[in-house]
Amino acid sequence: MEAEEPLVSMMTTIKDSAPAEMDGDPRPIGVFDSGIGGLTVVSELRKLLPNESIYYLGDTARVPYGGKSPATVQRYSLEIASLLLEQNAKTIVVACNTASALALSVLEQRLPVTVTGVIAPGAQAATNATRNGHIGVIGTRATIKSGAYERALCNLNRGVRASARACPLLVPLIEEGWLESRITDEVLMEYLQPLMDDGIDTLVLGCTHYPLLRTAIGRLLGDAVTLVDSAENCAAAVKRLLVRENIEAPRAQVGDLRVALTDPPDRFLDVAHEALNLEIGEVQLRSMT
Amino acid sequence: MEAEEPLVSMMTTIKDSAPAEMDGDPRPIGVFDSGIGGLTVVSELRKLLPNESIYYLGDTARVPYGGKSPATVQRYSLEIASLLLEQNAKTIVVACNTASALALSVLEQRLPVTVTGVIAPGAQAATNATRNGHIGVIGTRATIKSGAYERALCNLNRGVRASARACPLLVPLIEEGWLESRITDEVLMEYLQPLMDDGIDTLVLGCTHYPLLRTAIGRLLGDAVTLVDSAENCAAAVKRLLVRENIEAPRAQVGDLRVALTDPPDRFLDVAHEALNLEIGEVQLRSMT
Repeated sequence: MEAEEPLVSMMTTIKDSAPAEMDGDPRPIGVFDSGIGGLTVVSELRKLLPNESIYYLGDTARVPYGGKSPATVQRYSLEIASLLLEQNAKTIVVACNTASALALSVLEQRLPVTVTGVIAPGAQAATNATRNGHIGVIGTRATIKSGAYERALCNLNRGVRASARACPLLVPLIEEGWLESRITDEVLMEYLQPLMDDGIDTLVLGCTHYPLLRTAIGRLLGDAVTLVDSAENCAAAVKRLLVRENIEAPRAQVGDLRVALTDPPDRFLDVAHEALNLEIGEVQLRSMT
Repeated sequence: MEAEEPLVSMMTTIKDSAPAEMDGDPRPIGVFDSGIGGLTVVSELRKLLPNESIYYLGDTARVPYGGKSPATVQRYSLEIASLLLEQNAKTIVVACNTASALALSVLEQRLPVTVTGVIAPGAQAATNATRNGHIGVIGTRATIKSGAYERALCNLNRGVRASARACPLLVPLIEEGWLESRITDEVLMEYLQPLMDDGIDTLVLGCTHYPLLRTAIGRLLGDAVTLVDSAENCAAAVKRLLVRENIEAPRAQVGDLRVALTDPPDRFLDVAHEALNLEIGEVQLRSMT
């Protein structure tokens, strides 16, 4: 992408078409993820903000971001965000922990609309939930390597201790549909046992796919550990933002959901659909070239 | 990529620079894969053809190809192949089962040099190895969905029966470095037991990552099943091609290996390095834009 030019011209378009009246802003919330995991955030947004329209873009042609470098994730995120601006998005939600960890500040600097990631809301919820001040974080290799959760937690409360663990097998297990399987339980324990031994009392599910394993993780860790779901907390942060910026949808609006992907969907869309109970109509295909 | 133009102009360049003398062709063999799994093919090429130079390109910025659509895999393969032509490759090896399954014929039509995939050599070796005529094939979702191995086997011998199974968790397990682990054994048995029950006596490892699990698979399946490694057979096919086309390297040449990736390497490069015992010098970074 030749980023600078299109972003500036899009900004003009958006300002021109923003509604002048004060009865609400009908433009959609733009949501993106490297793939389809971000639909967990969409599901929470739909529950919390039923009259907001949502345009979701999953970069399935280049999924996953979780093992890629910061420079590449930043480039991909800017490209995807520019497609959301073309759709007249009034605000952008980065429904991907990897992109939030590696690209949020670049997006904030370069985009003409507000940007909400999943990390700050998740970190806030975790510091609220912890009793012993020891928080576990699981995510992709890139998210964990970035140290973004540790920084966010430390900014909120210097006394908090964080134990982080990359869990690269969880996304493939979820995409295989093995949500309740002995093998998945064993992989989870391999990853989570060291965090348990370390004494965490709160665990951040730091990848938008992971809420689909919430039941399994909850069963394995028991009541002693509070699970913090970045999807849920991100949706709450978006709601606060819309109020603060005065860009809520008109009250009479019935929000719709449009889903576009950069590569045709495979069977994981069915897994997500079933597990999230989302009404997804026809999926559009958006080419990146 | 605007493919047509650059490919044609590159063809001219290559023809101009091809050696007219008959004492061998010093140009490198170009090898590509979606990531680093194709180094298993490079390892076999190095053993078999020590005086050939190799330029390896791994598309780590967009890895994996295994869950993506034919159109996207074809586009990525043409883009990567054009970078190999820029490196003056005398022939191109598609060291990736997914790209071989979905893009080989497009590459053959569009490239000015010969192209060798991993599927035909693997299918040939499997039909040679089977005694009961029942061959199992494992690979990525895209490879298995394409039916490329079934077609290749049927073309060689109509009497052969194939049982194919997509094994999307194996690549992530290998990249995690869990080559010998109880969990990997359980995942393997989940995938392989139905093929065993079905009565196969030969199994094609239809993904260039899988040779790294050869020991584990051999231990689980025992002597009753012959394992066919696409890497080994692809290298033999390349050797035959070089002789047939009269483009072998000069006998006095000491082949070198250059490795380039589209995204900086992560720890899997160490896994591959150790398991394959390959001398990899400094890894170049090649941007796709």
